Parts: sequence; structure tokens; C-alpha cells
Amino acid sequence: MNALQVTYHIDTVEQDVVPHAESVLLEQTVETPADVAERDDFVREHMMGSIRDITPDPAGGFRVTFSLPLHIASTDPAQLLNVLFGNASLHEHVRLLDFDAPANLLGQYPGPRFGIGGLRERTGVPERPLTCSALKPVGLPIHDLAALCRTLAEGGIDVIKDDHYLADHSFCPFQERVQACQAAVDEAAGKTGRRALYVPSLSGTPEMIRRQAEQAQRLGVGAVMVAPMLTGLPFLHELTTRHLDVPVLAHPSFAGHGRILPEVLFGKLFRLFGADAVIFANFGGRFSYTRETCARMAGWMRRDWSGLPPALPVPAGGMSLARVPELVQFFGPDTMLLIGGSLLRAGHDLLAQTEAFVASVVRAALTHNGTA
Amino acid sequence: MNALQVTYHIDTVEQDVVPHAESVLLEQTVETPADVAERDDFVREHMMGSIRDITPDPAGGFRVTFSLPLHIASTDPAQLLNVLFGNASLHEHVRLLDFDAPANLLGQYPGPRFGIGGLRERTGVPERPLTCSALKPVGLPIHDLAALCRTLAEGGIDVIKDDHYLADHSFCPFQERVQACQAAVDEAAGKTGRRALYVPSLSGTPEMIRRQAEQAQRLGVGAVMVAPMLTGLPFLHELTTRHLDVPVLAHPSFAGHGRILPEVLFGKLFRLFGADAVIFANFGGRFSYTRETCARMAGWMRRDWSGLPPALPVPAGGMSLARVPELVQFFGPDTMLLIGGSLLRAGHDLLAQTEAFVASVVRAALTHNGTA
Repeated sequence: MNALQVTYHIDTVEQDVVPHAESVLLEQTVETPADVAERDDFVREHMMGSIRDITPDPAGGFRVTFSLPLHIASTDPAQLLNVLFGNASLHEHVRLLDFDAPANLLGQYPGPRFGIGGLRERTGVPERPLTCSALKPVGLPIHDLAALCRTLAEGGIDVIKDDHYLADHSFCPFQERVQACQAAVDEAAGKTGRRALYVPSLSGTPEMIRRQAEQAQRLGVGAVMVAPMLTGLPFLHELTTRHLDVPVLAHPSFAGHGRILPEVLFGKLFRLFGADAVIFANFGGRFSYTRETCARMAGWMRRDWSGLPPALPVPAGGMSLARVPELVQFFGPDTMLLIGGSLLRAGHDLLAQTEAFVASVVRAALTHNGTA
Repeated sequence: MNALQVTYHIDTVEQDVVPHAESVLLEQTVETPADVAERDDFVREHMMGSIRDITPDPAGGFRVTFSLPLHIASTDPAQLLNVLFGNASLHEHVRLLDFDAPANLLGQYPGPRFGIGGLRERTGVPERPLTCSALKPVGLPIHDLAALCRTLAEGGIDVIKDDHYLADHSFCPFQERVQACQAAVDEAAGKTGRRALYVPSLSGTPEMIRRQAEQAQRLGVGAVMVAPMLTGLPFLHELTTRHLDVPVLAHPSFAGHGRILPEVLFGKLFRLFGADAVIFANFGGRFSYTRETCARMAGWMRRDWSGLPPALPVPAGGMSLARVPELVQFFGPDTMLLIGGSLLRAGHDLLAQTEAFVASVVRAALTHNGTA
């Protein structure tokens, strides 16, 4: 297979599906009338792609699979996206359902540098699901965020991330905050003997983010968070291959690409471009993905794919302590459970609630192992 | 007004609209249960935002306007997007309809550095609509692309852009291509006395694009093209404020954000972050925007907005020579008409067809002035 295999959903009726598919094929390749493109031998032989399969979708419309020319997609990450869903994204009736590529293209992308194995090693959690919570709300002074961080770390949380609204604000500057929060997890480690990963959120233009990444790494953080759809997916690839020595937690902000199947966006593209752990909006919380979609997203992050290390699924978005057993049962051990707001609700009981969260994950993992 | 004013469409029924609006408000501000956020005085007073207006939408659902805290949005371009449509983009029932911000936030963004006035000056076209065509298909050798570029320039096209699939391919390397195409417009200028702007497409990670921008500017190009949704919107801002001395033409690839109103994405965000000219999928071509949407997109790019220079609307996507009079009538003179594939169809008649395109714009502009 020396082509990109890309599957779209095309919302059309049977008599129109072939002309529609042909126009999508032109759109995603030569973007020129076929008779113009075919004048040149090299273009005709190597750039035109082909329709591989058209199958009716039981829910309506058609699933159409194309072979698209690798030559166009393989120069850089932006071109890969361009060929997958560049102009096609502007067609209301087209959704990106899946893609795959031969090893010579995927081999250009190291994907997660740490992935599940590296995150387990960094947190010292070999088997059970990881736990995660968030420092928020934005607006708290650094002193309070650091105190929160210390309590969560003392309570045994594995990964403590900044809320994605924490940036380099004048009322809460990045460098001071990172320093204070990293000191808080260090201090807690002195007490408990286990060091939580503190994960600052990087935000801004690529230059600003590179500067923040340098500062954060100099201050000894265990990982960083970025929102790849805000900062640009190609920049995720650059960041992970050129500027970072620590794992990346990907935040889904701005990923409302309704017409890329979430499994493809979070399960494939975020992973391909180097996210080690991928936060996604879980079912039954504040967001609207179904159980099935979430199972598939997590599955796609972890499954074998051209030798790329698996990325760690991080279901999130309105999770609560009460749901831990259900979520562990559902996602299994290679998962990180992220509980933010509902944990913070505990107020003065935060340490106890945090410990309860951690204990609940440990218990649920044992039960899961027993039943697995 | 010292807050960000943001309007969403919320697809819900009357009895649920207030709780839905309240939950979107929390999502876009403190992302924490209200009782947790309200514990801190600074957070309660400065971070919570408010619901300003709820109006039934005649087409169903509700238009809900919020005041969102400027403090959170004002640190960097990624945070601005975060506050506008970060997590809200993940809610299937929410669409971003509009936003506005006080001058102290908008003042952080120079927007288009050249805009309509600068592009008119660079092309030497003071009043009529500009003309534009594209070098494609991808796969043509450099020699043929340069020949195409020379013919289009001799035919009088104002702006000649790379197809967005032209990248730094081994079969068509960036630097050689840019050099050859720039030489072609220079050569044509020697004949005609008018210099077309050759606009190479920049593609890749931010580092790769910065390198391409340097090369292109060193070779004397008149402008460059980027696809901000592929490369990341914050990078558009960085590129235009820190790395470029020439105008930027924005390409819509990957902008299938079905739930950001296209007027907001193309008309406001692309402009705010520095695009001088914005290509969009025009009605009646290969894409599905309506006449009304296109009129509003163009209108939003050009209208007064906090002192930002206007950006030049570039309707495109399956346009043809026959539609020039209609398009000039519809969009008026502060427009650039982009005809690619259908012009290239002319083959050996390309020079004549190009001249016909240019003449048609000149004629239509005179008629428009006559009737305006």
C-alpha cells in the first residue's frame, strides 16, 4: 500500500454518490478539473488518487474510501492534514471517518515519546489507572494554587495539571506559578515519598510556548499540557520532536471539528503528532459523546498502529468520585482518571476526598483485575 | 465595556435555556462548580462573567450573549480562542455566532498589516477588483509552474498564488520553485511594465514556515499564503507580527469548524490575527455557503472594527470567467477575484483567457461604478 487510505462519510443519495466521490477526490488531490490535471504524465500517474470503495452507511449516506497520493502528504504535517481534510472540511456533506498510511509515511512521526509506558514509569504506577486533577479556577493567587497542588499531591494524585485557562496572566505569572507548584509537589514528595507530576499548561504563539516549555523544564516539571487544536497540530509535532524532553498531555480545547470523527482527531492525529496522554470529553459528563465513541477513542489511542507507542486515554469533563468504579471497569487500567471541579468542591475536606479518589481507583483496579 | 461580548447559538428548548446558558458560562470561565469558584473574592468579582441576553432564534434554539472576563482572554491569542470557543466547541449544541471586545484587547492585535490599501498599493490597482489565479496542479515540474506563472502574469493577473498542495516536495522543492516563479513574474514585468505579485504557499511546522518565509522574502516575493487553521491561528499572529515583511493571503483549508459561524472565523479571527486577504469558498461554486453568508463574510472583513485595517475578501472555489460580472456586482471593487482551475482549462489559449479575465474585471468594475 503506497498510498494514503482515507475514508469519508458523504451525505448524499445513491445516484449522486459517484460524482460526489469523484469531486471529493479531485478536491483532495489536484484541485483542478480532471482534464487539466491529466495533461501531464507525472500528474496523471502519481497525483490523481483513486476511489477504492463505496459502501452504503446503514445510518444514511455513504462511506467512501480513497487512495490518495503519498507524495503530496508526506512533506510535512500540515500537508498531511491538508490531504486528509483540508478543503474537504469545507464541504458540509463530508466527514472524515478514518485514515491509514504506509509505514514510510507514519515512520516520519515518532508519535508519543513516552506514551503509556513512559507515563507509568514517571509516576511509578505500573498497573492501575492513573489519577489526575486540575488546579483551578483561574483567578486564584499563586499561593492558593500551590497550596491546592500540595494537598492534591499529599492525597496521592499522580498527575496534577493546570486548568487550561491558566496562562501567563499578570495576576498569576507563568514562571512564578510553575516554580511554586513544582515546589509544592516536591514538598509533598518529601512527606509521602511519592512525587506527583505537576503539569503546567502552555499557551500562546509557538514562540511563547517554546519559551514557557524551556522555563517549565528548567524548573523541573514532569510533563506539560498543550491544546493542539488551539496551537496548531503541526506545532504539536514540532514541539515534541524538537523542543521537549518531558511528556505532553493534550487538551481538547477548540477541537469542535464536528466533521472529523473524534476517534480520528483524538485517537489518531493527536497521537501521531506526539501527545503522550490525550484528554477527551467523557460520556455522562458535561459533554455529549456516547459510551461507544469514548470506548473507540480510548481504543484507538492504545491499539497497535504501525509501531507507534500507545497514548494514554484521559477521560474527563464533569467526572466524579462516585463514577470511579464504573470508569475503571469501562476503560481498564491503561487510563488516567481526571477529576477536577467535583474534587475541588470538597473544600477543607480536599485532602480526605483526594485520598478517597486515589483509594477508589486502587480498589476498582483490583476488582477489574479480578474480573478481567 | 470592559469584557468580551460573546454570542452563542444554543440548540435547546425554552425551559432548559437558562440552565444551559449557565453551564456554558461556567465552561467558558472558571470551569469549576459555581460554589467552588465563588469561594475566592477575586475569582467571584473578576472571573465569573455574566449572561447579558437570551433571545429566541426564529430558526429554533436561542441566541445567548455573555460578558466574559477580559483578564482570562487577554494574555495571548490562544487564550482568546480558548475563551471564545475552547471547551464550548466540544458541546454539540453550541455554536459561536459572534464576539466583540473592548479596544484594550483588540489593540493588542494589529490585524492586517497591509490589508486592502496595502494590497492595492503593491499591485498598483487603485479601484477595481483585483484578479488572482493559482499555480497547479501539484506534480507539475518547476519549469512548467514557472511557465504558467509567466503566462498568467503576461495576461495581466494581479496576484498569482501557489496551490495549497504545493509544499517543499522533493519533486518540486520550495526554494527552487519560488525562485523560478518570482523570476517569471519579473520577466513578465519587463515585457508588460506591470509586476504581478507571486504568492508562494508556506506549509509545515512553525519552524519550517519561518524558514520558508525567510527564503521567500529573500527571493523578493510580494506576499505569502498560509492556511491558519492548519498551522494554528496563534501562529498567524506570531508570523505577521514578528516574521513577515510582506502581506499574507489566508487559505481556508481545514477550517471545517462547522460550529464557528464562517463570518466569525474568516471575517473576524483571520483578520484579527493578521491576514491581509482572506480566501473563502464562494457561493455557487464547489462549496455550500449561501449568497447571504458570503456577503456577510466579505462585509465583516471590510467593515470598521476597532480601527483594524480591512482585509481583502477573496471569493474562490470553482469560480469561472462567466461569473465575473455577477461577482463584481455582488462583492464590489474591494475584492480579489480568484479563478484557478477553470482558467487553466484554457491550455494553449491561457494567455488569451487570462487577458479576457482581466478585461472582464475591468469592464465589470466600470459598470459597477456606473450603477453604484
